[in-house]
Amino acid sequence: MSNDFAIDRLFAAVASKGHVCIGLDTCADYVPPSERRKAQNDSEAVLAFNKALIDAAFDAASCFKVQIAYYEEMGTAGLCAYAQTLKYIRDKNGIVIADIKRGDIADTALRYAKAHFSGDFEADFVTLSPYMGMDAVEPWLSMAQKENKGAFVLMRTSNPGMKDFQYLELANGKRLYNEVGGKLAALPKGKNGYGLFGAVVGCTESEEASEIRKNYPSLFFLIPGYGAQGGGAKEAALLLREKNGGVVNASRSIITAWQKEGKDAESVSNLTAAEAAQRAAVKMRDEIAEIL
Amino acid sequence: MSNDFAIDRLFAAVASKGHVCIGLDTCADYVPPSERRKAQNDSEAVLAFNKALIDAAFDAASCFKVQIAYYEEMGTAGLCAYAQTLKYIRDKNGIVIADIKRGDIADTALRYAKAHFSGDFEADFVTLSPYMGMDAVEPWLSMAQKENKGAFVLMRTSNPGMKDFQYLELANGKRLYNEVGGKLAALPKGKNGYGLFGAVVGCTESEEASEIRKNYPSLFFLIPGYGAQGGGAKEAALLLREKNGGVVNASRSIITAWQKEGKDAESVSNLTAAEAAQRAAVKMRDEIAEIL
Repeated sequence: MSNDFAIDRLFAAVASKGHVCIGLDTCADYVPPSERRKAQNDSEAVLAFNKALIDAAFDAASCFKVQIAYYEEMGTAGLCAYAQTLKYIRDKNGIVIADIKRGDIADTALRYAKAHFSGDFEADFVTLSPYMGMDAVEPWLSMAQKENKGAFVLMRTSNPGMKDFQYLELANGKRLYNEVGGKLAALPKGKNGYGLFGAVVGCTESEEASEIRKNYPSLFFLIPGYGAQGGGAKEAALLLREKNGGVVNASRSIITAWQKEGKDAESVSNLTAAEAAQRAAVKMRDEIAEIL
Repeated sequence: MSNDFAIDRLFAAVASKGHVCIGLDTCADYVPPSERRKAQNDSEAVLAFNKALIDAAFDAASCFKVQIAYYEEMGTAGLCAYAQTLKYIRDKNGIVIADIKRGDIADTALRYAKAHFSGDFEADFVTLSPYMGMDAVEPWLSMAQKENKGAFVLMRTSNPGMKDFQYLELANGKRLYNEVGGKLAALPKGKNGYGLFGAVVGCTESEEASEIRKNYPSLFFLIPGYGAQGGGAKEAALLLREKNGGVVNASRSIITAWQKEGKDAESVSNLTAAEAAQRAAVKMRDEIAEIL
């Protein structure tokens, strides 16, 4: 297994555990209040909550995505909680996507790659932004090939502002996101035929989703926007392929599932909250599996 | 002064101190070897070096830009050095640009804004990436208006990969970077007529530079690529306006100036290195001023 690229490990995880990617966009408000009070500070509260959730939901998800903004907000202590969350997942042989959307060139890109493919912040995958060009993506590739890592590059997201730039029509008749997809499709492949670097593609209307899936068969997709941005299992499934080919991220609907169970908030423990998250992840996994 | 937006403070700083932005892309290899050995670890060595340099070159630069990748590479300890570098500049009433190139939407963007416009990582300006759309830029604006902060959004950089996406011709005849510039030009302005958020525009060929300056008179530019990417004072000056309108960043040529002085590396102290940096910054400042 250690010789597999990250994308091959993720492919195998999807085959055995399904398509759910649990997004640990954890802020202290999502932690049950009694547990939050018990902690020394918010960073510690978030870390303890994350650990309980990772333990409970580990088998219901193929991977975890950790959005660094939620930890940066808590300053240097928050970034220690971020580092420890990543380590906790990796120590259990879990797969973790660092949602950092970095995009810088040359020496700077190499330093970022070193920062997130090794050391305190080591992850299996990162997310990248392509605006500066492929020289903001390629420096990560050489280290990814050496260290069996991977990346997901922003391609076609599902936020309203997507229309501002990604969706613009080019003189050649294509849209900007197609240019990004085309460059990504040309990168080296893992043993299952998927590119070492995949793409972030949000849930969108069915015709476009089917077209994107058809045009980029070798791209593995990280699919955000499940639940929150209006996409459901049906929309997400259009972006999958042969029961694999992508992971579907849900964050708030899973990590705050305990808040929707109508219990007295004060009586909820991290364990109870984590079990609610596990149930939400299983439900989502089964909803997607049923459609495929 | 406290009611001025960051862009107004930067305008005033350029008027009094010139156009140089010193890039603190500091890695431990740039620290004189004897000083590096004296430090407990690389993060501490980098911080001590930065402090000496900030003190020595403070009056030769209108602002400092700190590239977070160089600190992230050193893990959580590196990010503490990053935080302390920002604080050191701000405690001297200096202006600091956090070169973080963030680009994410909605709640995530708000958390990033909180992370970099307040708390441990508080800066005066940040850099942003526009790929996801203006909803990755606008959440920063509301906090910037409240806290008198600013941002520079990637528009037209000067790395070779710039041609991959930024430079693509659109169906409407414009290039992608023009769409970004147009959206930025529509944002609110400070008292000197410059937008609260400026743009990152690299040194480029003279005709295009003049055109960019002409088309976006209200955009204040952060101009990287001085020295390293082939641009000099002449190229940078084309992007300036009425002896203001932009700052020109140089990193390695300033912070490693001590390495080019031919002294025995072992005998160089942080103070000597900082004085070499100060001379390099003054030289660059005067080269630009001479052309304007």
